Parts: sequence; structure tokens; C-alpha cells
Amino acid sequence: MRHLYHYWFCPNSRKVRISLLEKSMDCELILELPWKRRHEFLTLNPSGSVPVLVEDDDLILSGTSAICEYLEETGNLPNFLGKTPTIRGEVRRLSEWFDSKFYNEVTNLIINEKVMKGFLRRGNTQAANIRFAGQNIKHHLKYIEYLTDRRNWLAGSEFSYADISAAAQISCVDYFGDVPWNNFPLAKDWYARIKSRPSMQLILKDKIAGLTSASYYRDPDF
Amino acid sequence: MRHLYHYWFCPNSRKVRISLLEKSMDCELILELPWKRRHEFLTLNPSGSVPVLVEDDDLILSGTSAICEYLEETGNLPNFLGKTPTIRGEVRRLSEWFDSKFYNEVTNLIINEKVMKGFLRRGNTQAANIRFAGQNIKHHLKYIEYLTDRRNWLAGSEFSYADISAAAQISCVDYFGDVPWNNFPLAKDWYARIKSRPSMQLILKDKIAGLTSASYYRDPDF
Repeated sequence: MRHLYHYWFCPNSRKVRISLLEKSMDCELILELPWKRRHEFLTLNPSGSVPVLVEDDDLILSGTSAICEYLEETGNLPNFLGKTPTIRGEVRRLSEWFDSKFYNEVTNLIINEKVMKGFLRRGNTQAANIRFAGQNIKHHLKYIEYLTDRRNWLAGSEFSYADISAAAQISCVDYFGDVPWNNFPLAKDWYARIKSRPSMQLILKDKIAGLTSASYYRDPDF
Repeated sequence: MRHLYHYWFCPNSRKVRISLLEKSMDCELILELPWKRRHEFLTLNPSGSVPVLVEDDDLILSGTSAICEYLEETGNLPNFLGKTPTIRGEVRRLSEWFDSKFYNEVTNLIINEKVMKGFLRRGNTQAANIRFAGQNIKHHLKYIEYLTDRRNWLAGSEFSYADISAAAQISCVDYFGDVPWNNFPLAKDWYARIKSRPSMQLILKDKIAGLTSASYYRDPDF
């Protein structure tokens, strides 16, 4: 059985989980706490990061793009990269945008402060980081509005890895109610469509005991 | 004519330049200073980062993986991703390792301190960052030694994007003599083979007036 080492608030793990669900590919989830630096896990992925996918034939895959490109090459349809090199260029550009730029400017700051420091008590919280993430997310939501005003989905007419990447990041931040949806109605409409997908409904079922999620976190009609 | 917006010490720009040279694909270089946030450049890439590739048909590509995957799908041979999904998984895993992990733990710290702050006077330098990068690079060189002790090139028997990604990062750091080559002979041997390639010889020709490079920076026999 295929299995995926993941962590609740790791957006890259969520990206792979959404992709597997959308492709109806069975997978057993194994919760890995990367900061423990377990020896057995480091032998699977020396970088020490999740997600790590282990295929039925024991092939080990790590690196989020590496995993998603592999799923695209060998896994079930539908295809989330797009049909032409030009569309794939746009899908990959936006996937990098969210996997990297949004992650560094928003998700990583929020998760580090609210989960790693606040909940797991690994260091002292710094309110300035949360404020900084709160400023940054507005630019990203504005960009999502720019895109969805012109296109059905973020990278074009089809649902793609661009949407999956963005939803994976945003869902981690939205757990804490840190997305100012009411000021960005087009972005809210896009995310409502994402939330109504069965794949996303399953992802949003995860709740962490002792860490309250925003009341509307799971609700597609928010 | 295809053109590439790049910046001297941007490892991602170097990665695309090496790829284009290795594939014998002509390209005009345009130097872009991303921190200027030029309006015309932001219309090409709203994220504001280099590299940006503009193709003959005016197709605009940004995001390093997006550009390299596009070159692989539409550009000249040779192929640098590998022939099977399994090999491509390994090439992409290691490319992400260097593009992201090595960049965050080493290159970004060195370039930020020595170029952005030291040379361009954009902020006060912090010696602790350079020491931290100096510690981190040892782990990466050790990993390069682990890989090259078992394989001809980093991801397997063929020269690949894994080698190009690693060389692009390391060359930026090596400009300042910040790579402790003598303690890592296998890594040194691998980099000597990279340096002797005509593509890399061209990249290493770039020198910045007023910013002295290490004496052996260009020499394949160092």
C-alpha cells in the first residue's frame, strides 16, 4: 500500500494529499513530526522534511514538485498540469508562487508563531511576525482576485496544481481565521469552490485537539 | 530573439543560463536588478524575481522550475531530467534540495551579507549569518560526497538538473572563496568536472568590478 509521511500543518503535505484524493489514488497516511528528526525518517529523506511518498514498489519520493510531477507522469487522471507546454508553464509558475513565495511570506510565519511556538511551546512568540504575515496575505489575495477575475481557475480554464498549491497554503492559515475574506470577495468565491470539492472536505476534517479552528474553517458557505 | 532577465548572483538565473548553454539555445541576457522593482519588469513577472525568460513568440516564463521544465519539453537535447519517471523523481528531488534548501541555508545568507549589504550597502552586515552559512555548507558538501561516492553524477549516471542546480548555487558562494574545498575532496572532484564544461566556463567569466572573486574561482584545476 502506498503511504505518505505528512504533518497536519505542512502545506506541502496537504498539496500532495489533495492531489492523491483528486486522482482517487489510495494512500495510507503516517503522521511525522519533522522536528523530532527520527533516524528512520532521515534515511527515507535526508533533508528531514515532509511530505515523503513511498510507493507500492518501495520507491521513495520526496520534494513536493518531484512528488506531484511523478503523480502526473504515472498516476491516475485527471491531469493537473495542463495539456500544452504553455499552460504547464503557467501552472508551474503559479505553483512555485504559492509553494515558495506565499509560504515564506505568510504560511511559514503563521505556523511558526501559532503552532510551533504558541501550541508546541518551541520558542517565544513574536507578534510582529503575525502582523507581517497579515500584511503580506493581502497582496496575495489581491493577486488571486486579479487572476480569478480573468480566468475560471487560477492558471486558466481548468482546475490545476496552481489551485491545489494555493488552497494547501491558504487552508493552513485559514485554520486560525487569519484570512481577511470579507475584503476579497472574488478570492472568497474561488476558495468556496475549492472547499466544496470532496478532496478538500476530507482535508478540512483534520482538527487538532487543543487548537481551535476558525468557526467557518470547514464550511464551503462561509 | 529569446531573452533572459537575470542577475549576476542569482543562482536561479545561473541555473537557467547553464541549461540554455548546455542545450545550445541562443539567448540574449538582460541584467535586471530585482530590488529596483521596475514597473516594466513587474508586468513581466508580478513576483518581481529573476529569472524571467521571454521566448521568440513573446511567451513569458518565470519560476525556475517552470522555465527548466519548459526547456526540457520544448527545447534542444540533451535531456537533463532523465529518461524514466523514477530517475526524474530523483533529479527533481535533488534540484529542489539545492534550489531551496541549499539556497536558504547557504547562498541567500552569503549573497545577502556580502553583495546586498557589503557591496551594495543595503543594510548592516551581520557576521553571524556568514558563520551560520559556513557551518551549513559543510553538511551539503558532505551530502555531495555521499552521492558522488556512489554515482557518477549527483542523481545517477547522467549529468542532470541536479548537477546544474548544485553548481549554480555553489558557484555564487565560491565567488567569495566560501567553500571549504580541501576538506571535501570528492565534492571538489565533482565541481572540477562541472567547471571544465564549456557552459560553466562562460558563467564563471562574469566578474563584478570592485568585488574581487577568489583566485581559483574560474580555474577547473583548483
